Order: sequence, then structure tokens, then C-alpha cells
Amino acid sequence: MPSPIEIYILGSGSAIPTLQRKHPAVALRYEGECLLFDCGECTQLGLQKAGISPMKIKRIFITHWHADHFAGLLPLIETLHMLGRKKALYIYGPEARRFVDYILELSYLSFGFKIKAKDVSIEEKERIVNEKKYYVYSFPVRHSVPCVAYIFQEKAHWKMNPQKLTELKIPREKIRKLKARKKINLNGKEIRLAEVAEKIEGRKIIYSGDTLPVKELFEEAKNAVLIHEATFKYKRDTGFYHSSIEEVCELAKKYGVRKLILMHFSRRYKKHASLEKFAKRLFESIIVAKDGMKIVV
Amino acid sequence: MPSPIEIYILGSGSAIPTLQRKHPAVALRYEGECLLFDCGECTQLGLQKAGISPMKIKRIFITHWHADHFAGLLPLIETLHMLGRKKALYIYGPEARRFVDYILELSYLSFGFKIKAKDVSIEEKERIVNEKKYYVYSFPVRHSVPCVAYIFQEKAHWKMNPQKLTELKIPREKIRKLKARKKINLNGKEIRLAEVAEKIEGRKIIYSGDTLPVKELFEEAKNAVLIHEATFKYKRDTGFYHSSIEEVCELAKKYGVRKLILMHFSRRYKKHASLEKFAKRLFESIIVAKDGMKIVV
Repeated sequence: MPSPIEIYILGSGSAIPTLQRKHPAVALRYEGECLLFDCGECTQLGLQKAGISPMKIKRIFITHWHADHFAGLLPLIETLHMLGRKKALYIYGPEARRFVDYILELSYLSFGFKIKAKDVSIEEKERIVNEKKYYVYSFPVRHSVPCVAYIFQEKAHWKMNPQKLTELKIPREKIRKLKARKKINLNGKEIRLAEVAEKIEGRKIIYSGDTLPVKELFEEAKNAVLIHEATFKYKRDTGFYHSSIEEVCELAKKYGVRKLILMHFSRRYKKHASLEKFAKRLFESIIVAKDGMKIVV
Repeated sequence: MPSPIEIYILGSGSAIPTLQRKHPAVALRYEGECLLFDCGECTQLGLQKAGISPMKIKRIFITHWHADHFAGLLPLIETLHMLGRKKALYIYGPEARRFVDYILELSYLSFGFKIKAKDVSIEEKERIVNEKKYYVYSFPVRHSVPCVAYIFQEKAHWKMNPQKLTELKIPREKIRKLKARKKINLNGKEIRLAEVAEKIEGRKIIYSGDTLPVKELFEEAKNAVLIHEATFKYKRDTGFYHSSIEEVCELAKKYGVRKLILMHFSRRYKKHASLEKFAKRLFESIIVAKDGMKIVV
């Protein structure tokens, strides 16, 4: 069984938060680690409600520097400092270094841990994290200011077939070598990994903050879980900067998104149930996010 | 009847917020206007819960620039912008101009209203607002960084005695002149305001953010409402930067504070009722603040 990937919707609202929908923030838990995508106001309270220690967060991915997507960063950093953090914190985003510098100018504290801001490309997809079991990529989208989406890509792994291993009499100590080199020589006979194991493709979760619908992002989201903004219900309302449920559902259907999670709703939509009803008619495999929701992939 | 002064405790916690106690922020409503004292993370949600429109806020008073006292400022400003604000917003604090400049560097927006940052003295009491019906003063206190308390002082007013006015046959149109000049001449006879009216002293509300107990502030708080931090219960825990319930109650008693409102409690105190019990034994006229509390003076 692969480890679960847990997605926590800490805030599902947009620029003006409401009591029901706070500023955007999404936590992803995987193998004991926590990745945070956007960090609007009240993110640390969202983490508390979800029972996630902020100390588990190693990396924060900011889609763009509008306050609703980062206003919780400085208070979160100060909390980490007061909790005695020692491990470095990585913050990604377009122009991350410039903005993180300004944020740190707002503090008298000299923090007990390193804060490493990393600029990401707004021109092309970029691999920004290469961990043992996953990658993270940034992916340019289209908003009123430099803005990216992020792709969490679990690495593929091989699931060994014990029956085949026995049949071919492969000793236990050779298995690691076989996994690493994809083939080994055993008593003069070449054995390929694919003969004794099945390749399991990794799961893919995409988080997009504010954006117009970008076709290339939906191509990227084929068979993936896509967390996407849908500030408005109708295409006619989106203007130049945002997406609507109508548009996102249409593209999700067209490009074969496995599971669509919508968030970043305008405060004009007061009834969750009616948003949900509207969205479910347009795309079947959909979740209309709520603050405090947990989704296991 | 004088207009009520309403005090709203938007956040009663300290540096690390909890689900029960958010970062410090206190709103004061008086004659249709709203003054905000400190503006920690989630302040705009506190305003929503209290049913106060942020558009009513003309002035924000920051005691000092630790994130728990100002992290809600940028998202509040962005909300005001999106709500179409036109009226100027005044932000006071020690080094307010420097910090507000940095905060505004964090925004791509050019706001539709003026933001006027005003530095206040950390050396001496300073009158910083002179409105028709009240003054606001800043008052230096002692914390690890430049820090002040704020004093809201309602102006004294004269309550006319209708019986006396009739007795002395003072025509209605002379009353304004009498109020302004304190005396008038009527048919060759001098009439003093004090003969026909009673002087009502204005109410005084003091808000102090983080500080060691400062004797001079308690002298200032004689017969006043004092909102004071009490990060800890016991004097032995206060260190160099904060106050305890023990110390604040002792001084409030000694200097004749009319009503003491305590807040900014450490997250170590999980039970409100036990804090309240502890405090009430030390000083009678006390309110142990909770998020969402409203106090009418």
C-alpha cells in the first residue's frame, strides 16, 4: 500500500475572507512531512484546527504575492521561531527573494533558523524540489501579477512480485541492486526489473492559485488531482484574472482530470450547497472545497 | 445620556495564537466611528464577527511592531481597497512610517485611498488626535522594542439645566454662545456657564499592548478604564518584557483604576474560568477578556 497523500483545505476563500471561507492555504501531508501551498491570513489557525504542527512544514509554496496568498507568512514564521525551530524553512515563489526580504524587514527578531527564499520561473515549468520520493515543479499561469501553479509529483516505484522472485531464485540481497540498476546478472543470466516487478506510476497533485484558465495546466493535469481556483460561477464574470466553475469544469472534462478540487470562491457565494450542486452538474469527479476539509488521495 | 463607548475584544491572545485567543486587537466604537488598537492576524475576521464594517475605521493605533500586533494590517488594507474605500486611513505607532512603508512595498496595488503613517513619541506622552469630542494620546511603555500605550480621552461637556435656563430667561439662541465663551452678558447682567450647567468630565479608556508594568501608566489610569496585557499569572514569570495578573492587579488597586480589562494571555493558560477566578481574587473591578467580548462604558 502506498502512503496516503492527505490534502487539507485550510482556507477556501478569496481576497476578502469570510467567517466561512478564509484566505487560501492548502497543506499536503505525505510520509510525515508537510508542504504548504499559499499562506493567507489565519493559516496557522487552520493548521491548528487540522491538528498539523507548523514545525512539520519544510517548504512553503507561494503562487503569487497578493496578500490573501501570503499574509499568514510572517506570523507563521514568528510562531516557528517561538516554538524553537532550528531546521531551515524554504519559501518558493515568483520574486520570492524580494518579497521575503521585505517580510523579514518587518521583524525585529533574528530568527533561530534559516529562511531560504527561492525564485521560481514564470517562463516555463521548472523542477524546484527533488526529494527521495517526490518532485515539486512550478508551472507558469496567467494572473494580474507574476503567478505560478505547483505540481507535486510522486516518483514512480516498483512493486516486487514475490512469486517471480522465488521462481527466479533471486536472493534477497540482490533486490536493491536490481531496483537501482533496473537489471542484474545472476548466474550468467540477465534479469530485468520489469520481469519481476510492476512499475507503479506516482500520484500527481496540482495546486493552482489565482489564474485565468490555462490550457497547458489542464494538459498537465491529465489523470491528476487538480486543485484549482474558481472565483466565480460563470464564465461571463471572470474578467482577465480569474476562473469560473464553468470554465474549469469544461477543461477538466476535456483533458481528463482525475479529480477536481475547486476553491478560492468569491464571498458573493454564501451557500456552499448551491455551489456544490452547480459544480456537480458540470463535472462528476469534483470536490467543492470547504475550510477544514481533508481529502485523502 | 452620553453616547456609549463600546469596546470590542477582537483578539485576547499573545504571540502564538490559539483557536480560543487570537492575536491582540481591540476596536472602540464611539459616535459612529471606530478606532482600532493593534491589528494582529485575523483582525478582519474579528471585526466581521463583531458586526463592525472595516470601512468605519479611520485610525489604527499600533502599540509596537511585533507581528502579533500588526500581522492583520496588510490584509485589512487590501480589503478596504477592494471595498472601494476613498477616505484616508491613519496609522499611528512608534516608527510607523518605516513599518508602513515596508508593508506597502509588499503590495502590487496602488490603493484608492491615502494611507497616512504617523510616528508617535517613545519619550513622552503626546497628543496625536484632536477630534471634536475626544483626544487620543500616545504614552511610552517598556517592552523589548519601541512601544506605547494609547489613551482615548473623551472631552468634557456641559449638561445644561433647563430649569435654570428658564429661571434666568436665557433665550435659546444664546445658549451656543454661552457654551462657547463660558459666559455671556444678558441685559447688562453676566451669566456664567457654570451657573446654568453641570460640567461632565469625559470618559477615559487606556489601551496598553506589551509592556512591563509602568507605574506612570497606572497613575494616568486613575478612575479610567484600563485595558492591559497580562501575559502571565505570576510576577515570577514576567521576565523583562511582560506583565502578570499579579502585578497589574496590585497597581490597579494602588492607583485607583476604575475598571481593569486584562488580555494578551499566554497560550499556556487553557482555561478561561480559572484565569478569571485567579484575577477576581486580586482585584474586584476586573474583566478577563475573551475573544468576541463586548464591553460598554
